[in-house]
Amino acid sequence: MLYDPGKGPRLSCTYINNLGTMAASNEIVSIDSLVSHSLSDSDLDEFNRIYYGRKDKHSLAIKTENIESADHNNFEIAAYDFPAQKEETRSPRIVRVGIIQNSIATPTNKPIREQKQGIFNKILKIINAAACEGVNIVCLQEAWSMPFVFCTREKTPWCEFAESATDGESVQFLKELAVKHGMVIISPILERDEAHGDTIWNTAVVINDCGKVIGKHRKNHIPRVGDFNESTYYFEGNTGHPVFQTKFGKIAINICYGRHHPLNWLMFGVNGAEIVFNPSATVSGLSEHLWGVEARNAAIANSYYTCAINRVGTEQYPNEFTSGDGKPAHKEFGHFYGSSYVTAPDGSRTPGLSRVKDGLLIAQLDLNLCRQIKDKWGFTMTQRLDLYANSLHKAVQPDYEQQIIRPN
Amino acid sequence: MLYDPGKGPRLSCTYINNLGTMAASNEIVSIDSLVSHSLSDSDLDEFNRIYYGRKDKHSLAIKTENIESADHNNFEIAAYDFPAQKEETRSPRIVRVGIIQNSIATPTNKPIREQKQGIFNKILKIINAAACEGVNIVCLQEAWSMPFVFCTREKTPWCEFAESATDGESVQFLKELAVKHGMVIISPILERDEAHGDTIWNTAVVINDCGKVIGKHRKNHIPRVGDFNESTYYFEGNTGHPVFQTKFGKIAINICYGRHHPLNWLMFGVNGAEIVFNPSATVSGLSEHLWGVEARNAAIANSYYTCAINRVGTEQYPNEFTSGDGKPAHKEFGHFYGSSYVTAPDGSRTPGLSRVKDGLLIAQLDLNLCRQIKDKWGFTMTQRLDLYANSLHKAVQPDYEQQIIRPN
Repeated sequence: MLYDPGKGPRLSCTYINNLGTMAASNEIVSIDSLVSHSLSDSDLDEFNRIYYGRKDKHSLAIKTENIESADHNNFEIAAYDFPAQKEETRSPRIVRVGIIQNSIATPTNKPIREQKQGIFNKILKIINAAACEGVNIVCLQEAWSMPFVFCTREKTPWCEFAESATDGESVQFLKELAVKHGMVIISPILERDEAHGDTIWNTAVVINDCGKVIGKHRKNHIPRVGDFNESTYYFEGNTGHPVFQTKFGKIAINICYGRHHPLNWLMFGVNGAEIVFNPSATVSGLSEHLWGVEARNAAIANSYYTCAINRVGTEQYPNEFTSGDGKPAHKEFGHFYGSSYVTAPDGSRTPGLSRVKDGLLIAQLDLNLCRQIKDKWGFTMTQRLDLYANSLHKAVQPDYEQQIIRPN
Repeated sequence: MLYDPGKGPRLSCTYINNLGTMAASNEIVSIDSLVSHSLSDSDLDEFNRIYYGRKDKHSLAIKTENIESADHNNFEIAAYDFPAQKEETRSPRIVRVGIIQNSIATPTNKPIREQKQGIFNKILKIINAAACEGVNIVCLQEAWSMPFVFCTREKTPWCEFAESATDGESVQFLKELAVKHGMVIISPILERDEAHGDTIWNTAVVINDCGKVIGKHRKNHIPRVGDFNESTYYFEGNTGHPVFQTKFGKIAINICYGRHHPLNWLMFGVNGAEIVFNPSATVSGLSEHLWGVEARNAAIANSYYTCAINRVGTEQYPNEFTSGDGKPAHKEFGHFYGSSYVTAPDGSRTPGLSRVKDGLLIAQLDLNLCRQIKDKWGFTMTQRLDLYANSLHKAVQPDYEQQIIRPN
């Protein structure tokens, strides 16, 4: 059975906000659904060719039991294929990734363990559906097991969400699922590093298909924009640009705000990544027009797959806070607009998940496409890294003189 | 009088191909026009907000005489505004840029001087319209004064199009217009460097508002993809990443294929550019789904304006050539799809010019927006250039070991 979210009904949906009341939402589901419903078939072909990079969205079948589970548990599920050319000397290297966007499950004034457990419960159902569809690698959104509280600048009680990257509650929960399903799971959490002064970090933990934590990556670039005052809580990461060799390919994680930094994306490519996940949390009114551009550009520039994942829903906090924009204090964050999507090294992309609903996006990737696109476009061959290593070395000197041509 | 190309008629246009016959085109005008005609007003608002980064396209009035000139001479004209916030300590710094996309004017088997003069004639009319609209800086497309012949790999007669960056025919022609209109003109040409072994380069010449050539920039990254075998004719540029200080702001030029290289864009930003032009020549079926992504991402990542300019029309050459794709020899290049557009540092953008017609896109930019966006988003503050200078220095060593984490 084919499920095409682009042709689904345009919902005037309702969803549960975080203090437990039902709110009618007037958010549109996606621009994908807007356009799919409005254009004629031939115009839609042209739109899809120019915008998505392919006329056919290459939707994959979803099992009936998972469609029913998704309906019952109020999450979206969609799957797309990215095939590559056949080669003589290499077999196809097919991997299924699943990216998950989720709202929080309970009001933010509930006990921390209750909030966390509520999210675990909904993630469990989504990961089970992913496993049932044969997904090999799952990546969750940034700080998936908690509300995105950093706008409050309150240390209490929020720092209690931080947990060990080795044996915290989230890791324990996901290790079991990784073993059960033979699945790699990337878990972006708020990390508490007890061994180094109880420091807090924004960290993605990588659990392999045997349930072993094979490593972690800490967010390299920390925002100080609007409600994203995250430097109150943690510093710029100190783990470089690691690529994790898993059974299913070489993967890396560019956490959230790092998507604005082309050099961050570049170094994961230099280190050999074939898939780079971008677990994020970002809101409407701030970044939505950038969302379809940055992770997609990174896939193009670096000839790898990118998976952009954004939180969904609107969160409220118990105490009011200000946003550094002259407006009155308030308790509600803006709308996290979801819209998670996958881009291939050739620049073609999937439609986004819903702007208003939890979701699982499955993409079947032939990793051979990465090298095929490097051979075709030649971006790595022509990138002149030596030139830029020298230029940047000079540029960071305090007395650097910019190359400016002035008329005599 | 307001002219909104998005609401214009959807043309099943005809145009003259390069061997002089009339061909009916079934190319759509733009996805902008497709969507504008199909969505309801409220849906279009949402589409524009999410896709263009602003609900209102901020169209500017065009003078009646220029609308008539454009109709008469078969080019499109459109103008958009990018305002910035008022500041206490700086006045607004308003500049009008005009970017021009053009097809060739005569068949490619005509004498070289005749081909060139035909293009000069049409560019003259478009630059005059730009001047009449108060444009301060004009940028033409890559190798604007010639057909894009590099696919042929023939040296004769095409190398005769190359000319001096100091006093070639194109420079002479444009110097006069620069003085007459008090306008900066960027002229991307095939350069013949007589002083250095008669070498050929792909070069953008910058002529200031007094008609003086203040400098030039040579294309840093040369493609070897499909019909773009340009390495047959010229090498990677040796002019670094110059920024030109003009009366109207600090400008730079990232020529064509350099748009695929985030480091190229980055260095123009490091050197202080406020507007980066991307004169290009690229065809449908190869890059069209990348076109809206790359120059736009560069504007976002570097907090400057970018102006992406693409050639338009379909060109035929006298002798057949192959495209390195196993297909039969042929005489026709693919369709250059125009679609030139401007992006602001905040990521909002204009609609594109037509995919099938010559055009002039005028954008009124407040350059103060660059620093305002740096202050808001903090991308330069958080970019950690020192980290990447070190990482790239290591990465270019022949014995570099990638940072790969393998399970024990």
